[in-house]
Formats: sequence, C-alpha cells, structure tokens
Amino acid sequence: MNIEIISIGDELLIGQTVNTNASWIGAELLKSGRTVRWVTTVGDHRHDLTGALETALSRADVVLLTGGLGPTHDDITKAVVAELFGVTCSLDQAILEQIKQRFRRRGIPMARVNEEQARVPQGAEVLSNDQGTAPGFLFRRDGVRIYVMPGVPREMKSMMQRLVLPELVKDRDGGFNMKMLCTTGIPESTLYEKIGDLGQLDPAVRIAFLPSLAGVRLRISANADTDRDAEERVSSAADWLRRKIESFIYAEEDISLAEAVGRILKERGMKLAVAESCTGGWIAHQLTNIPGSSAFFERGIISYSNASKIELLGVPAGLVERYGAVSEPVARAMAEGVRRLARADAGLSTTGIAGPAGGTVSKPVGRVYVGYADAGESAVREHHYANDRLGNKERFAQAALNLLRLKLQENSGHGG
Amino acid sequence: MNIEIISIGDELLIGQTVNTNASWIGAELLKSGRTVRWVTTVGDHRHDLTGALETALSRADVVLLTGGLGPTHDDITKAVVAELFGVTCSLDQAILEQIKQRFRRRGIPMARVNEEQARVPQGAEVLSNDQGTAPGFLFRRDGVRIYVMPGVPREMKSMMQRLVLPELVKDRDGGFNMKMLCTTGIPESTLYEKIGDLGQLDPAVRIAFLPSLAGVRLRISANADTDRDAEERVSSAADWLRRKIESFIYAEEDISLAEAVGRILKERGMKLAVAESCTGGWIAHQLTNIPGSSAFFERGIISYSNASKIELLGVPAGLVERYGAVSEPVARAMAEGVRRLARADAGLSTTGIAGPAGGTVSKPVGRVYVGYADAGESAVREHHYANDRLGNKERFAQAALNLLRLKLQENSGHGG
Repeated sequence: MNIEIISIGDELLIGQTVNTNASWIGAELLKSGRTVRWVTTVGDHRHDLTGALETALSRADVVLLTGGLGPTHDDITKAVVAELFGVTCSLDQAILEQIKQRFRRRGIPMARVNEEQARVPQGAEVLSNDQGTAPGFLFRRDGVRIYVMPGVPREMKSMMQRLVLPELVKDRDGGFNMKMLCTTGIPESTLYEKIGDLGQLDPAVRIAFLPSLAGVRLRISANADTDRDAEERVSSAADWLRRKIESFIYAEEDISLAEAVGRILKERGMKLAVAESCTGGWIAHQLTNIPGSSAFFERGIISYSNASKIELLGVPAGLVERYGAVSEPVARAMAEGVRRLARADAGLSTTGIAGPAGGTVSKPVGRVYVGYADAGESAVREHHYANDRLGNKERFAQAALNLLRLKLQENSGHGG
Repeated sequence: MNIEIISIGDELLIGQTVNTNASWIGAELLKSGRTVRWVTTVGDHRHDLTGALETALSRADVVLLTGGLGPTHDDITKAVVAELFGVTCSLDQAILEQIKQRFRRRGIPMARVNEEQARVPQGAEVLSNDQGTAPGFLFRRDGVRIYVMPGVPREMKSMMQRLVLPELVKDRDGGFNMKMLCTTGIPESTLYEKIGDLGQLDPAVRIAFLPSLAGVRLRISANADTDRDAEERVSSAADWLRRKIESFIYAEEDISLAEAVGRILKERGMKLAVAESCTGGWIAHQLTNIPGSSAFFERGIISYSNASKIELLGVPAGLVERYGAVSEPVARAMAEGVRRLARADAGLSTTGIAGPAGGTVSKPVGRVYVGYADAGESAVREHHYANDRLGNKERFAQAALNLLRLKLQENSGHGG
C-alpha cells in the first residue's frame, strides 16, 4: 500500500511551523508496519495544491491530506478538492449545530466565519472532529482513498486515531516487527564500526542509525510472512547487536533517557532532587513531562545565581570563590546539597557554560560538570561539547541523566 | 525563482525525526523575500529519490537537497545523483586530509567508512563542511542549480549560510518586506473577527494567521518595486492591525513570550524568581534559553512536593491543608514566597493539574492558578485548558508569563 501525505500551508514552507503532523502520522503508521512513501508540502495556493493532489492520485493508494480547513481566508483545501472532483459544497445543519454547541460549551460566541466549516462537499464521507470545529472528509476516487483532515495537530491526531488508522491497519498483508535500541555516549561512526559487518545479518532485517544530540537510536525492523516470524528475526538481530554494544544501550524501546531513568527510580521507590545551573530547568522539565513523575521527582532548584547555590544548597562560599561556580567541587557540593535539602535518595547537579558568552580560556563555552550524590557516595564527570546554547543545554542535561543511569545500574549490581 | 527542497531519509517518513531542516531553510529564505514552493520528502530508496529529483528538475530553478551523505550503508544520495547525471565519483585527497584532520583534532581515530565521504562526483563544485566530515556539492544542469547538502542540521546550516544563501539572495528582483505581530490570550477566530474586513487592506499586502498553543502570530508581508516601498506598505498594514488588537500583541517580531518578558526585565534591571509546580521547570527552561538570562533570572524552585512548597517557599501548611496545593491562596503564597526567598523584584508561580491523572470533580485536569508578586501587590489568575500533559504544561507556562507581561506593562504605565 503506497501512502502519501500532503501537508498544506504557507507556514510550513516559510518555516513558521515545523511539519510535526507528517512525522506523527509516519510514526503511528510504522507501529503497525505501514510506511509513508512520500510527503509533499505545498502552500495555500490553488495551483500547487491541485498539482500535488494530481500527482498523489497517480501514484498512491492512500492520500492523507492535512491543513487548510480553518475559518480564515487562506484556508482553501475544501474548495480545491471539491473543484478537482467536480462537486459542490452544501451546508450541513447537523454539523453546524455541533460547531455551535462547541462554542456554547466554552462559553464564547461563535464567529460567523465558522459557518463555512459546516459546508460539506457532495459525495464525501464526513470525519467528525471531536477537538475542534472543522470536520474532515473521506473521498474515494478510482481505488484511491483521500482523507482530508485539519492541520491543527490535536484535531488531526484524534481524527487519525478514531477514524483513519483503524481502516489503514486492518488490511495489511504479511508480518512485520520493529524494535528500537537507544544508545547514548558514543558517536555514530564509532558505533557503526563497533557493530561491524551488517552483512552478516538476516537479509530480511533492516537496521537504521538515527543520530541526535541525545544519542544514536538503532531501529531494527523486518517484514516476513507472519508477525511472529518477523518478531523472531528482529529479536535475533537485537541479540547480535546487544552483544557488541550493550553498555551504551539505555533502553530497548523508543523512549528518552529521562523516561528510562524515571522508570528505574519509580521501580525502586527512590526520590530524586535536582540542582540545575547551566541546564536551567531542562532536566526537571524532561522528568516532569513523564506522567506520574511526582512519584520520584521531589524537587528541583535552578540555582542560577551564586547566592542561590550558597544559601539554598549549602555550597560553601569559599568553594565558589576558590574554584569558581563552574567547577568539580561545586558540582559535587550542589548534588550533595540538594539531596540533603530534599531528604531525597539521590541528588543530581549541573554547572557549566552554555554560551554564547561567559567562556574563558581555562573554562570555555561547552564545559560542564555533572554531579551525583547518594547516601554512600558522590561523583562528578567533566564533559566538553561544542554546540550552540540550546544544543549545549541538551547535551549537559543528557550527560547528567546518563551519570545518574550508570550509577543506578552500578548500585543494582547490573554493571555499568 | 522556484525553489524546491528535497529532504531524504527514512527517519523523516517514519516519524523518528521531524523535518526541521526544511523549516529552517524556509525561514532563512523568507528573511530576504524568497519563498520555498515545494518540499518533497522521500526515503533512502534509489527509485524514489531519482523520481523526486526528476520532478524537481522539471519545475524548479533551485533544488536544495539534504540528507543521505553520512558514512553508513543507507546513505545513498551521492550515488543516486551521480548516476542520474551520468558521472562517476573519485577520491579527492585534499578532502580526505580535511576529514582526517577533523578526527585528529577531536583526538579520536577516523573510522574507515568515513573515506567514502572524500569521493567527489565528476563536474560537481565542492561545498566545504566546517562542522562535519561530509562535503556538499553543487551541480548545474540546464539552468537548474542543485545543491546537495548533509542532513545533520548543524552542518547543513553552516553550509547554507556560508555558501548557498548568499548566492540565492543576490539575484532577487523587486522589493520585499515582512513583519510579525505576536498575540497571546485570544483564539484565532475571535482575532479574525476583531480585525474585521481584510479586504480594506492594500492588495499588495498579505496577512497570515499562525495559531499555536502559545498564541496566534500574524505575519504581514508585501512584495513591491523596492524594499522601501514594501516596507511602507507593511508598516501601514501593521498600524491598521495594531489599532484593532493592540492589547493582545506581546511582540512585533517573531520571538517567544518568554523572550519578550525577559527583555522588559533586563531593560528595567529587574530580577525575577519563579516557583513552578505543574509546569515543572518549563518556565525556567524557556527563560534560561535566552542568552544573558542570568541578568534577570535569579533562581527557580520546582516545588513538586508539598514539603518543598512549605519548607522552601514558606507556604503555610494550613493553607495547603485547607485549600489544597492547587488553589488560589497557594499560588499567591508561592509567588510571594519565592520573591522573598530570592530577594527578587518579582515572583511568578504556577500550581495546577497537567494530567492525565490527578484531576477531581472540583479541580479537573487542565485547571491552573498562576501567581504574581512584587513589592507592592500580588495577583492570581485561574485558567482552564483542555490539552494533553505537555500541551497543558505549555499553556500553563504561557498563562504565567502573560500575567507577568501584563503586570510589567501596568506598572510602567503603558496600560494593559
């Protein structure tokens, strides 16, 4: 089955909005062994949208079109699709009533422009929108299914999950399986060489390297006659890979390092406290993005000023004076201090220079000290990275979380 | 000039990576009045990449191709382009030496697979890569320029900025100008109606509505004979819009609310302290993403536990007991407490229920109280949102920052 996504909107072409809709759809389809083959993005222009639709109709079995169903003058999708298929639109009273109800529930008056959203192209099946005012539509033309959906992510996702994905998944042929090995702390090319000859693997198995600032993820996938057959092939490839790179793997599913560490803490009933300087709250933000994180995250201190390091975390003023706020002893005192303050099982800290300013010859931009403390020990690691401010913040946070992971593994006797 | 981006990589189609390269390129080109007309994304498959290239060559004047120049087996871009143009590749000793030097500087051995990256297609101009090992290439065919660049964002961006954008910008005809009005706290359709008849505007001016969880941005742009003419047209459209929606505008350029608020604080020499519960560090993370934020951001407390609210922020235990941690009095006490603790000019707080669990009938998921305190007063606003955990965290953080903005405006006598 050939699937094409058409994403519509000037905002996508001029970089005001990143096309997260296409990546979300791709990820959802992959879970059940479907892959998107083309993503075409065009602006809010009749001619280009018509062209993209004609191309898609000539090569795809399923077209997933998102965007341009809103209430304003630049929302042209419905009109363009209707014109291409030679149909007219007419007002649907039931949909109009639903839209009105939506506004009533929120206690705000319906804008008159929203009425346009209740007009339905002839012959289209309506896809209900339970998150917003614009309904979607399904057209069937010459064996091709064209799903027209809103571009607002929340609305599109609900529509996909309730009404589109179940239809696309049910008629899959053959078996499929996929597994993710997430690594951190090793560059892509070194990982590739450490793994060695991929030619030794089952040819039905595909391995993809997915590098990012947070680490390299390995995606292992296979198509086979049955799901079980595919699962066995993926599983033995994973065994083969695990023997070569085990110590770098922090998770065997596609989750963040924060999530992996959060799970260990939760399983062990441990409480964590975090003292962040250069990461400025990013570690806490990542950890508290996890539902139920209050079970393991006790508190965070963003000790941006020296005063906050000294008063709140009990870092000796003399230590800051002698070694500077960005130093091994201060990182250690911060981790110990926040653990004590919160009466937590573990403390984690960061102090470094994210840039662009603030670097010196002896402590350049990109230098970070990450600290760890528990009841029995404390540890600090020095790292150096060479990214911009946000990239450095991400690397610093990742280094701290990786230190926590390795310490948690050591302390459970699993080895590091 | 018709510009097409071709993004290559299975990871883009299956949602492992979001196509931020295309949006970055779009935004950079727009700054000088160029717009991308098509973005086509295909996987690491010869046939599909060849097809995308053929289509682009038939309709575009400039093709910007990113991805698939890495060292691993699924990097096929160079081979496919060379085959399509009927040329061979040969090893370039100078490039090989640069790659080797790069590894030497980082103190790690060069993996043998990196050698492949020193092979150059016949007739291509080499685009140097100062951020990584894979050089890019420029081909000229039948009046079309094809720029082939790495997919690693840092490498692509440097190559674009040094070698590609200056070429694309210099031969622009006519004038262009663009301006952004960023609003928050008003839904798109209400904003649209408040603005009224867009037909009254200069027809050379385009207005785009860009909604997100953080607010609606209005992009005003115009092409004209000269840059100055375009600027005047955009400027009078902005005046017209400002008269209708001024109180909702937090910035007249494309920056985040955190950045807008950070600038005011910095200008006034004010220090801010933040006490976050439900936002879990996101406000602090956004504020500390701003270079130089240590000038105004004193500290943050992520008071996830009740103990941390009571001990650190001095929220009376009786208040938490009587009204619950998610309540108006606790939000107020948190803002006052963190301000006092940090001896800051202003304190900001959040307490709410981000979900998915933790909601009750009287305090459902999505409820938030945001608090503000300065030397003279304190204020709390109650809001209710209906997003998922991350969406709620974002809305909550935005609501707190907007309260801070309005208070800062009030206190300067600018009006709210």
